[in-house]
Amino acid sequence: MLAELITIGDEILIGQIIDSNSAWMAKKLNEIGIAVKQISSVSDDRQHILQALFEAKNRADVIIMTGGLGPTKDDITKKTLTGYFNTGMRRDDETLENIKRIFKKYTNRPMLDVNLAQADVPDICEVLLNEQGTAPGMWFDFEGKIYVSMPGVPFEMMHLMEERVLPRLQKAFSLPKILHKTILTAGLGESFLAQEIEHIEDSLPPFIKLAYLPKLGQVRLRLSASGTDEVALKNIVSEFAGKITSRLSNYIVAEEDIPLEKAITDFMAQKALTLSLAESCTGGYVSSLITQHPGSSRVFQGGAVVYSNALKESVLGVKKSTLNEHGAVSEQTVKEMAEGAVHNFNTDYAIAITGIAGPDGGTVEKPVGTVWIAVASREKTVAKLLTFSNKRAQNIERSAISALTMLFQCLNKQL
Amino acid sequence: MLAELITIGDEILIGQIIDSNSAWMAKKLNEIGIAVKQISSVSDDRQHILQALFEAKNRADVIIMTGGLGPTKDDITKKTLTGYFNTGMRRDDETLENIKRIFKKYTNRPMLDVNLAQADVPDICEVLLNEQGTAPGMWFDFEGKIYVSMPGVPFEMMHLMEERVLPRLQKAFSLPKILHKTILTAGLGESFLAQEIEHIEDSLPPFIKLAYLPKLGQVRLRLSASGTDEVALKNIVSEFAGKITSRLSNYIVAEEDIPLEKAITDFMAQKALTLSLAESCTGGYVSSLITQHPGSSRVFQGGAVVYSNALKESVLGVKKSTLNEHGAVSEQTVKEMAEGAVHNFNTDYAIAITGIAGPDGGTVEKPVGTVWIAVASREKTVAKLLTFSNKRAQNIERSAISALTMLFQCLNKQL
Repeated sequence: MLAELITIGDEILIGQIIDSNSAWMAKKLNEIGIAVKQISSVSDDRQHILQALFEAKNRADVIIMTGGLGPTKDDITKKTLTGYFNTGMRRDDETLENIKRIFKKYTNRPMLDVNLAQADVPDICEVLLNEQGTAPGMWFDFEGKIYVSMPGVPFEMMHLMEERVLPRLQKAFSLPKILHKTILTAGLGESFLAQEIEHIEDSLPPFIKLAYLPKLGQVRLRLSASGTDEVALKNIVSEFAGKITSRLSNYIVAEEDIPLEKAITDFMAQKALTLSLAESCTGGYVSSLITQHPGSSRVFQGGAVVYSNALKESVLGVKKSTLNEHGAVSEQTVKEMAEGAVHNFNTDYAIAITGIAGPDGGTVEKPVGTVWIAVASREKTVAKLLTFSNKRAQNIERSAISALTMLFQCLNKQL
Repeated sequence: MLAELITIGDEILIGQIIDSNSAWMAKKLNEIGIAVKQISSVSDDRQHILQALFEAKNRADVIIMTGGLGPTKDDITKKTLTGYFNTGMRRDDETLENIKRIFKKYTNRPMLDVNLAQADVPDICEVLLNEQGTAPGMWFDFEGKIYVSMPGVPFEMMHLMEERVLPRLQKAFSLPKILHKTILTAGLGESFLAQEIEHIEDSLPPFIKLAYLPKLGQVRLRLSASGTDEVALKNIVSEFAGKITSRLSNYIVAEEDIPLEKAITDFMAQKALTLSLAESCTGGYVSSLITQHPGSSRVFQGGAVVYSNALKESVLGVKKSTLNEHGAVSEQTVKEMAEGAVHNFNTDYAIAITGIAGPDGGTVEKPVGTVWIAVASREKTVAKLLTFSNKRAQNIERSAISALTMLFQCLNKQL
């Protein structure tokens, strides 16, 4: 069972927004046993949308579209679909009621004609009620293929997928099981990982695929298998995953598809350890990485974003003399930041990061990309100098990953 | 001049990673006058890659691929390209030297055969040297179309695009000018914005397109124009942009394509105002939004992420009695947090956010999604209660946008 995703909207093609909807939808479809064959982003253009639909229906059984359903003139998906399905347009009562309800709730303005027109749908569609917004979801069963059209606003799309589309797809088809097992490693490059486990990879049965997904100091290994017998599939994937993790034991961070920061806070939660942060150049990014995960408050107590030297002193207790003698980006300062966080925030561990994220602020001695990281526990403090590039976003990301890897190594007594 | 982007890799199709490369590339191509016709993500599968190339070359002049160039067995782009171009494979000396250099720099391990094989490229390609990684970029001029293949690792791809691909494309073609002008609005829904400016939209010449891009409490209006005379294009787009901004004056946040937080810090920098943050449920997210932008340190002094009540007291000076009587998520607490930040961090303004992000931690009185936001200046403090959903990521995002909008309104004396 194959699906294709088509996102409609010029804003994606000019790079104004990143298409994060497709990854989310692909994950959800995979979970119910529907593999995604292709993801395409096309323009708000009738001919182009029609062509994408023709191409997709030749490859896939289910075609899911998002976007182009707004009340404004650039939104042409519904009109295009009446052409594709060779059908007319009708005003849907339930959708109209829903639009009126939403208007009443959020505004006291009168409704415009374009708002009413959002209740118009192609004749042959089944409406998927969208309580979260004014654009309806639509389901078409046409010449043996399923077509779904949803608004591109992420939370509306997510609501429609979870409440309407996924349950209907599960009902409509008898689906095979697709199983993914991901292992997160850190500290060894992908070619060396591959060498270490070459004999295991070569012995994989044909219905199991191994992929290497590298990302700044980490590599995720993903085993993917498909079949009909879920239990047998789980067993054989577990068996090979077990072989891989025992072979690579020193580099295994997590035996599931979770990010580094989640693996760390899960580990710390088990040991009842607490964490705080002292961030300068990463500006709260590490903190936001950690706190995006439910339950992080068991471990993470809080932290300080100390952009100014004044706050480094007043919040973390970094000594004025240290800042004057060594500067804000130095081994001495980063250690005092980490130790100050452990002490002032009363946690078992703290990470401190101070550096020059760029693009400005570098000097000959400390160019842009110079970053000091420290991890302190109540017993000891370790610090490390890293030298990155002149790209701000990259420097922030790399600093964060390096700091988290360093904490992971400290927790595992490797540092 | 049209381009298509093809990202190769199962990890995108199973939703394990979000394709952020394509948006970046699309933006850069637009800047030099190349419009992106379609973005496609396809699997690590020979037939599928070939089919995507055939479809793309029928629509576009330039086909840019990323991914599938790693040293491991799942990476098949190069082999597939030799088939597509009907050519052989050669080992490229410059690439080999580059790989050796990178190995020497980052590891003292001996090179493996698979590492050496990364220097193999299709015979007819011109190599685009990738100093940032071991996979080479490749440029093909074949039957009147340009094909480019690059690794999918974002910073390697970005390096190759900026240093090699974009300059070559500019040299190879005489490119039309594509101009985008974006206006950021907040506080009015898209259909009402459209009604306000309907007469302006109707008078747009055919080579200018207006798009509405809504996003949680904000709508961006984008005027796109293409032509050959850059100066004339700029003038007419400016003229219409001016009409729109004067019509919508109360709702205009910025007259350029920048996010809300950047519009705010730019405004505050002009007035020499400083800002600090006191974040609980947003966990550093607002801080990381602000600090991702170069120059934010002129305005942003720092802040506290106070997950625990203990830190709310010790870092921000929230009174124990306030926390006991009203709880951490309350008007009283959020106001003391904001005022504590203004005072302790010595800034002109502070934002404070405290709420229940979920999915756990809600009560009958304060369900998940309950969020209090305050903005304090040295003169006054305003606070607002918001009620969101039960989705953690959404609650964090909406809290952040609401808090920034509230600060914007305070700065503009609307609150």
